[in-house]
Amino acid sequence: MKSDIEIAHEAKMKPITEIAGILGINPDDLIPYGKYKAKIPLSYIDKEKYQQNKLILVSAISPTPAGEGKTTVSIGLAQGLNRIGKQTTVVLREPSLGPVFGIKGGATGGGYSQVLPMEDINLHFTGDFNAIEKAHNLLAALIDNNLQSKKRSLGIDPRTVKWKRVMDMNDRSLRHIIVGLGGTTHGVPRETGFDITAASEVMAILCLAENMEDLKQRLGNIFVGYTYDKKPIYARDLHAEGAMAALLRDAIMPNLVQTIENTPAIIHGGPFANIAQGTNSVIATKMGLSLSEFVVTEAGFGFDLGAEKFIDIKCQYAGLKPSAVVLVATIRALKYHGGKPLKEVSQPDVEALKKGIGNLQKHVENMKLFGICPVVAINRFTTDTDEEVEYIKSVCREMDVQVAEVDVWGKGGEGAIELAKIVNKIAMNCPYQHKTLYDWNWTPEAKIETLAKKIYGAEAVDYTAQAKEDLKKVYSLGIDKLPICMAKTQKSLSDNPDLLGRPKDFVVTVREIEVAAGAGFIIPITGQIMRMPGLPDEPAAERIDVDNNGVISGLF
Amino acid sequence: MKSDIEIAHEAKMKPITEIAGILGINPDDLIPYGKYKAKIPLSYIDKEKYQQNKLILVSAISPTPAGEGKTTVSIGLAQGLNRIGKQTTVVLREPSLGPVFGIKGGATGGGYSQVLPMEDINLHFTGDFNAIEKAHNLLAALIDNNLQSKKRSLGIDPRTVKWKRVMDMNDRSLRHIIVGLGGTTHGVPRETGFDITAASEVMAILCLAENMEDLKQRLGNIFVGYTYDKKPIYARDLHAEGAMAALLRDAIMPNLVQTIENTPAIIHGGPFANIAQGTNSVIATKMGLSLSEFVVTEAGFGFDLGAEKFIDIKCQYAGLKPSAVVLVATIRALKYHGGKPLKEVSQPDVEALKKGIGNLQKHVENMKLFGICPVVAINRFTTDTDEEVEYIKSVCREMDVQVAEVDVWGKGGEGAIELAKIVNKIAMNCPYQHKTLYDWNWTPEAKIETLAKKIYGAEAVDYTAQAKEDLKKVYSLGIDKLPICMAKTQKSLSDNPDLLGRPKDFVVTVREIEVAAGAGFIIPITGQIMRMPGLPDEPAAERIDVDNNGVISGLF
Repeated sequence: MKSDIEIAHEAKMKPITEIAGILGINPDDLIPYGKYKAKIPLSYIDKEKYQQNKLILVSAISPTPAGEGKTTVSIGLAQGLNRIGKQTTVVLREPSLGPVFGIKGGATGGGYSQVLPMEDINLHFTGDFNAIEKAHNLLAALIDNNLQSKKRSLGIDPRTVKWKRVMDMNDRSLRHIIVGLGGTTHGVPRETGFDITAASEVMAILCLAENMEDLKQRLGNIFVGYTYDKKPIYARDLHAEGAMAALLRDAIMPNLVQTIENTPAIIHGGPFANIAQGTNSVIATKMGLSLSEFVVTEAGFGFDLGAEKFIDIKCQYAGLKPSAVVLVATIRALKYHGGKPLKEVSQPDVEALKKGIGNLQKHVENMKLFGICPVVAINRFTTDTDEEVEYIKSVCREMDVQVAEVDVWGKGGEGAIELAKIVNKIAMNCPYQHKTLYDWNWTPEAKIETLAKKIYGAEAVDYTAQAKEDLKKVYSLGIDKLPICMAKTQKSLSDNPDLLGRPKDFVVTVREIEVAAGAGFIIPITGQIMRMPGLPDEPAAERIDVDNNGVISGLF
Repeated sequence: MKSDIEIAHEAKMKPITEIAGILGINPDDLIPYGKYKAKIPLSYIDKEKYQQNKLILVSAISPTPAGEGKTTVSIGLAQGLNRIGKQTTVVLREPSLGPVFGIKGGATGGGYSQVLPMEDINLHFTGDFNAIEKAHNLLAALIDNNLQSKKRSLGIDPRTVKWKRVMDMNDRSLRHIIVGLGGTTHGVPRETGFDITAASEVMAILCLAENMEDLKQRLGNIFVGYTYDKKPIYARDLHAEGAMAALLRDAIMPNLVQTIENTPAIIHGGPFANIAQGTNSVIATKMGLSLSEFVVTEAGFGFDLGAEKFIDIKCQYAGLKPSAVVLVATIRALKYHGGKPLKEVSQPDVEALKKGIGNLQKHVENMKLFGICPVVAINRFTTDTDEEVEYIKSVCREMDVQVAEVDVWGKGGEGAIELAKIVNKIAMNCPYQHKTLYDWNWTPEAKIETLAKKIYGAEAVDYTAQAKEDLKKVYSLGIDKLPICMAKTQKSLSDNPDLLGRPKDFVVTVREIEVAAGAGFIIPITGQIMRMPGLPDEPAAERIDVDNNGVISGLF
């Protein structure tokens, strides 16, 4: 079987000007990065069009190590919609560089549903992550410089500074560090650390910003820490937002590439789906909707995290709503949810499937809470039996939910025709009644409780002493009206990663509460959240190489 | 008076394809980054042409806070050569991002001798510095990951690891840090730090590499540290060089831009001039010489550092030689060398000039040691008196050295016509006898002594106990035949920054010796070398902004 990179290398890409032509973009307006990547100026965003065209969100059941293939289905579906005559753009997140050198290789779809050029997109792409990293770290340098400064000190208490630095690298040694050692000319010693760039609040901000003005405003609102006399300090107090925005001048523009079938793809931003909103930029989504009839997009992790935040945070800020939502499931993953060990998920086992199906059912029920007509996509593997597939279909019928099998890895858009037809029908006809889960004006406690009970299926919410303390801070900073961005394990509907399937009778414990005053949300932390991955014993980096012609190998 | 950025914004840039056309580059071969920047594929390097065309090096007297304007003169001279009908490209270093937010603003020339687009070049440009940073930090992550790994441990003694991390940011708090805190899953605690990206050995390597194969070889040769049983460990032992090179796939290609007069400019790489070779990449220089009759290039700091390394390291590795060398001086700077306080250098003072002239004289004598026909360029300021200018000219006549006044800031190429004519004549007719200062096969001690006595004018060289210990390491690693890259203050011909003018009767003290086994040189350290600058009390970042049209202000 060919690897993803081999399939990618065999593909015939079209010049990016041709892809832009499909979208009606004048080649002279395009900002090229080589022959197959380009940035699109924000002037192409058109409010009338983005409100009228159709936004399709692809989400998934709770992710498992068996894999679901949400990005691959998104790409395949966009290709499928084009095949049935619907002019469609797929709008995705940018992959993070760090994990490429760890275990996973690339993050650009797979097989015949990939975005290209995959090496470029997986490595530096058009420099957006680097720009975000620099803007983030400039603020960090300005904070430590102010701690050092005698003449212009703001009196910041270094023990209250939560703003860490970021690097797009899997580097566990940077998680907990002490900086400022070496004596009086080398800064003020303090504990801090590095997160991976995708976890930066600047990433979350860039992905929620409407334009440069909004971006600057949000950057200025970043909460830095307190002075010794307990006065809150924001990035604007350090006059940081102008220079940070200057570093993001190009990064704010979305990137145009293409899929393996020459379908336009806009790839822009990549915030984490636990501590942030987990989906591409508002600007990219609006750009896609301004330029094509359909946009297929995705959000990180399962429906309970990515899709919920997509609707309650991103869509609310941006004034958007999805016309259909696809829930991706694999039979392997559902068997895993039913207790089947990972090594055995390729073996037929309808009983395990029945035990795990609750996970799918709960996500479908959640979709209905938002007034969505759900579509289930079974991402089919060769090891799946007809009996297993038929079982899922019967469950979907019982729930009055449309369902389609897809084989987007092996067949590209051709493998998603049935799904594309269903999605088209629903997007055109679903009597969608826009419902959000909660009102932003509620108290944080009410918003959190609603999420925990309605979406996760919890009995109650518990707060640690720390979390209660943090809640006071939220009120005192006057940001209690912001939406909730729950940091929860993606592996379970509950806050316990070991509870697979459809957990019941559990309590969600909020351990602490962070604020992203710049991005504009409150982050209740319900478990250990990995913000800086490490490398494995045998890092993928050891296999990656490039030859004299610039051809990269070892990505997959 | 207009600021540099205002002058830059008024300039009419030509599309980069047109600039490439001047050089005979097929637009289809060009890799564009927007409309005014592009990378040139290495296939355009042509050995016959680069050996035949003329390389002009611009160097300077020992730099002072009064300013000399070496980059501005290089750009102006290239424009001047074009004006007298010589097809010329200026080949320069890429500026570092970090200092832009500190004091100095941009580093892309000034007035009517600038390279454009200046905001882009000063900020992320085409992403080369970021790629270097990531390649460097990937090796750091692999080292710390190996320290953590039980299964595949190389037995590296963390106390011997000299490989730090890098960030292109003025951030003093990162100079001395402790990483790996937080417990057993978060790495092995150890002392380390961050340098600015320009100080990375990966930068030095990229700038000496001939092609991808050579790049990989040099990356693999990076010395990492010792095992507990004193075995040396190199980057190749961690299988790091393939992935590092993959990260540098695009960064290895030189960048094409233009000057304010639409003269082609190739800008590529920016290693430090103290701990590294301080000049643009070999690839960029060869590219320029392959595509135009004349190349004007520059090297960091004064002739004693930048130009010496240019000839003894870069040209030796690359098989190049300069056909002429221009020494830039200002009357203000020479008065400063003569003891005039900085605030008073605008006042006429022939006596101070006479006291400081020794600095110029020594650099000219040094040029002759290499068999160069020297040319002195007086970068004229409005405050300079005719008497002062006449004095320098008379000194040059006594030394049988050609001299020209230039006003490249105010007049662009027009202000360098006289200099261009002299340079052209010398490049065509100078009976240049290629002499290097030393033979690489000499012992390190002999090479260091030759440099110290002949170039700096020292009486002797002294070694600390640490330096003697380090010398043993150089021999034991078998790298004693590498050239010497002296880390010395740029402010003085001696190793004492306070000794201005032409110091005499001094001893150079080698405090320690570092190795750049990958780049391929030995670095004797003779003083405090700043590898990670800090921000000032009032950072330039506070003034930098960008408007809704993407126009950046506050760079200058």
